[in-house]
Amino acid sequence: MYRTHTCGELRIQNAGETVTLSGWVQKIRSLGAMTFIDLRDRYGITQLVIEEHSPADVKETAGKLGREFVIQATGKVTERSAKNNKIATGEIEIIVTGLQILSSSEVPPFTIEDNSDGGDELRMRYRFLDLRRNPLKNAMILRHKMAKEIRNYLDSLNFLEIETPYLIKSTPEGARDFIVPSRMNPGEFYALPQSPQTFKQLLMVSGYDRYFQIVRCFRDEDLRADRQPEFTQIDCEMSFVERDDVLETFEGLVKHLFKRVKGIDFSENFPRITYAEAMERYGCDKPDLRFGMHICNVTDETKGRNFVVFDSAEYIGAICAEGCAGYTRKQLDALTEFVKRPQIGAKGMVYIKCEEDGSYKSSVDKFYSADDLAKIAQKTGAKPGDLVLLLSGDKKKTLGALCELRLEMGNQLGLRDNNQYAPLWVIDFPLLEWDEETGRYFAMHHPFTSPKMEDMPLFETDPGKVRADAYDLVINGVEVGGGSIRIHNSEVQQQMFKNLGFTPEEAEKQFGFLINAFKYGAPPHGGIAFGFDRWCSIFGGTESIRDYIAFPKNNSGRDTMIDSPSKVAPEQLKELSISVNE
Amino acid sequence: MYRTHTCGELRIQNAGETVTLSGWVQKIRSLGAMTFIDLRDRYGITQLVIEEHSPADVKETAGKLGREFVIQATGKVTERSAKNNKIATGEIEIIVTGLQILSSSEVPPFTIEDNSDGGDELRMRYRFLDLRRNPLKNAMILRHKMAKEIRNYLDSLNFLEIETPYLIKSTPEGARDFIVPSRMNPGEFYALPQSPQTFKQLLMVSGYDRYFQIVRCFRDEDLRADRQPEFTQIDCEMSFVERDDVLETFEGLVKHLFKRVKGIDFSENFPRITYAEAMERYGCDKPDLRFGMHICNVTDETKGRNFVVFDSAEYIGAICAEGCAGYTRKQLDALTEFVKRPQIGAKGMVYIKCEEDGSYKSSVDKFYSADDLAKIAQKTGAKPGDLVLLLSGDKKKTLGALCELRLEMGNQLGLRDNNQYAPLWVIDFPLLEWDEETGRYFAMHHPFTSPKMEDMPLFETDPGKVRADAYDLVINGVEVGGGSIRIHNSEVQQQMFKNLGFTPEEAEKQFGFLINAFKYGAPPHGGIAFGFDRWCSIFGGTESIRDYIAFPKNNSGRDTMIDSPSKVAPEQLKELSISVNE
Repeated sequence: MYRTHTCGELRIQNAGETVTLSGWVQKIRSLGAMTFIDLRDRYGITQLVIEEHSPADVKETAGKLGREFVIQATGKVTERSAKNNKIATGEIEIIVTGLQILSSSEVPPFTIEDNSDGGDELRMRYRFLDLRRNPLKNAMILRHKMAKEIRNYLDSLNFLEIETPYLIKSTPEGARDFIVPSRMNPGEFYALPQSPQTFKQLLMVSGYDRYFQIVRCFRDEDLRADRQPEFTQIDCEMSFVERDDVLETFEGLVKHLFKRVKGIDFSENFPRITYAEAMERYGCDKPDLRFGMHICNVTDETKGRNFVVFDSAEYIGAICAEGCAGYTRKQLDALTEFVKRPQIGAKGMVYIKCEEDGSYKSSVDKFYSADDLAKIAQKTGAKPGDLVLLLSGDKKKTLGALCELRLEMGNQLGLRDNNQYAPLWVIDFPLLEWDEETGRYFAMHHPFTSPKMEDMPLFETDPGKVRADAYDLVINGVEVGGGSIRIHNSEVQQQMFKNLGFTPEEAEKQFGFLINAFKYGAPPHGGIAFGFDRWCSIFGGTESIRDYIAFPKNNSGRDTMIDSPSKVAPEQLKELSISVNE
Repeated sequence: MYRTHTCGELRIQNAGETVTLSGWVQKIRSLGAMTFIDLRDRYGITQLVIEEHSPADVKETAGKLGREFVIQATGKVTERSAKNNKIATGEIEIIVTGLQILSSSEVPPFTIEDNSDGGDELRMRYRFLDLRRNPLKNAMILRHKMAKEIRNYLDSLNFLEIETPYLIKSTPEGARDFIVPSRMNPGEFYALPQSPQTFKQLLMVSGYDRYFQIVRCFRDEDLRADRQPEFTQIDCEMSFVERDDVLETFEGLVKHLFKRVKGIDFSENFPRITYAEAMERYGCDKPDLRFGMHICNVTDETKGRNFVVFDSAEYIGAICAEGCAGYTRKQLDALTEFVKRPQIGAKGMVYIKCEEDGSYKSSVDKFYSADDLAKIAQKTGAKPGDLVLLLSGDKKKTLGALCELRLEMGNQLGLRDNNQYAPLWVIDFPLLEWDEETGRYFAMHHPFTSPKMEDMPLFETDPGKVRADAYDLVINGVEVGGGSIRIHNSEVQQQMFKNLGFTPEEAEKQFGFLINAFKYGAPPHGGIAFGFDRWCSIFGGTESIRDYIAFPKNNSGRDTMIDSPSKVAPEQLKELSISVNE
């Protein structure tokens, strides 16, 4: 062992002991004949001191050191005269009597500090150095701890972690599958799983009634800032359960994690909001419940006053921003610009200022009497001093725009504190989604999602209204997980395929082995999957999931550190019976 | 919830309670007006009873049941008159008052019993049914438990589990890499990792001094019965350690697992045997130490008696099979046939029977006097009643053949009990391996394995003699894990590349990013990796690792259940800019 202690371990109680530490040189300061070295490892920083009367070889070695050199130092633990209460070892220092360079270091391309001077790209290229920084180190430790607590909790409930294969089969609709040529089976390919969905359902058929897995998943799609071609999922499935059994089990998991990792107690049940309600009140299916400011339908209150914009709109909705009546022209214009951005797509914005004196000022004063404005404001719950913001148009789009406006106002008012957590379940999602392009319904989740039994008759009359026994866990406006009760009955499944426009042959081709397995006794079952990277980032309190992945890819799916993907040798392609198209 | 209890839970104490169980119909027996159903789930079997005076609908439903139907039964827990002490629930049965079919089942293609009537291929195709059988269920539970205990132990020692990427880079020598075309980077490929070796070393450079990961690895090689294209590794690395630190840490892990999973205490340290000694005494680098019968070099004792076979041989070795002097002609012939099989390749076998009366009988009586034979027998430690077996020829090959013969005799004498465990460390492996074909040395492990410092001068004089700081964990003749101390010093690394015949350019091309990372302060480090599938099979006491993998591939790398690998759509290949060679 190259050390007797770590750099985060020594305290005043150790004073007088002779110790050996190893680590990286964080900082060197020379004060006259004295040299101070901050020695760093994963556990902390300890101050080394080389004095005027230190051994000559120690002084000589110290003279050669630079930032990020790896050294081994032996010496006596001594009480500091000037204590540093910012670090755990701040009461002591080591008077060095032996010093050895274990590895030298070139000058790193950016500073290894909490706030580095390195740009994003440079730090990705030198990820192995970036990972030395505290924010990333803490992210890795958080991730480890979360995985551990997830496993402990699920194990305590008799869940078995079962590994499912990574080399699976590409499905005709799996356009975003990564595929893998098979050398032993020329012309044939494996696919990397987008999720272990099929296998976990097979495990239910096999009788493993409580399964989970922390598992890598793969999706070859265009990447946005917060997507990765490989990501980690907490994949879970249970048999002999109904929806509420699943929700209770995993609400327990979420609470356990909050308690053990963040020290936060959630004694109350998480709110459950239907998809329909989420859309009406928050304009989206993943509402941020850290603050209220919900959307009010003011269509009735605003129509028929000859304001053509509203009169021609399908829907008019409003939110009330507390205490914002004083917003300036400039601030209001900025908000109007915000909602008119193409991603949001509103045509304009109407405001009503509820002045402290009880009067109203609005951008549409000439169409609405004070009484009219009062009624609208009242509907949103506005009090004197508040600002009501209205958007109008097509209902779905307008709700979407109001959702964005609400979040923006939440930001402006500081209502979205990263250290506050508002988890909820969104339930009763629609089963089907209409696709304009192909003119048919698609399964919103996947074709094995169970409809709510009471909605079965709607398949004949209004399929779009059929609700699924599907649910999402949302925390702070982010979808952390989602799942459903699955269909385990062959007749319901046949009906489902018919509704989705599959011929029996197509269904067989695409889902054959699961349909076949279901012929041999499938238990009622359901499950959920959580996005682990995302969940870590929420617990860590930062936006980017990349910070929680040791070696992430950039937005082009590249790992710039190892320079991958890359070309491969022609012989290798030949062995695999494939060629690259020129 | 479709049940109040599992099928493994109810005891005599529950008598009188009304319960609901769900599970699979294992067996139905009708005795006159009574019907007995064995209801099975993951937790056990509970007997259901339908009587003459049971509700009519229950009797009707019972009449429709078949094997592997999924049912839900409600009834009263009742003490059995005829108890079954073979199962935990054997003291009670359920008098059924409500019965529902949750899923029907076709007749399964083989019996779901501990010993199934299904052939290997059929059971692979219906793996989801095979997984219902106890032996496989117990294997999955064992695997879960082992993974849990591994994580608990390593976590308690401050190891962090850090996930490394699966989409990495193909290396020029990575002929057995699976590669993955990148849609976003046409003509370029990721590779699936054969192990996270590089990344764990990078993590050491990053300061994560105790890393582990239970991780999937991939190798596209011709499969033998006990190989899989994807397999799971327990991958570990530590910084600021020397060899003995690594061995002690992971010997602790092995002992912890034996204790927690098998209830076996190993209070003694595991034996450590050098590679050279293992080869001399057991003929291989993974000796089975459940029994002695080690190999004796009897070259000196056998040469010069005009027996041309021995006189012309480089090496003559012998083992002593206790109590086998009574072997018949037929048994001895069978052993001769055994060693002459092409996989073993001996030319013949000589025996010496040490008779109970103190005389010796040998197949080479005419060359050796009784005294000669006594000397040879003595060297092997033979006593009256024992049988000495001799092989001769090229030393390396003969030792290999003696190894096989020793294992065969161990089998014949019942010395290889699957419930007995003999772990050991094999240390001091050669660093380099001579390749006849290319006429150069290769790294036996990988080019970052550290030579033993005292052997450094041998690089100049006899590179084949340089020993590595490498080690294997062997249990019962199976290599369960292996690792090494790595080179962290750039000069040693340069020397190493030179010895391996790499030009600086080649080294840069192949290992560039690791060499580069090492320029920024690499700590001394070393590690180990264990084959998790294999380890499970040893703990489970069966030969095949397949039984410990939920969804394994067959010997052609195929998953016959999902029929993968398979052809993919031409449009998909086009999007990936590749074609299949016709």
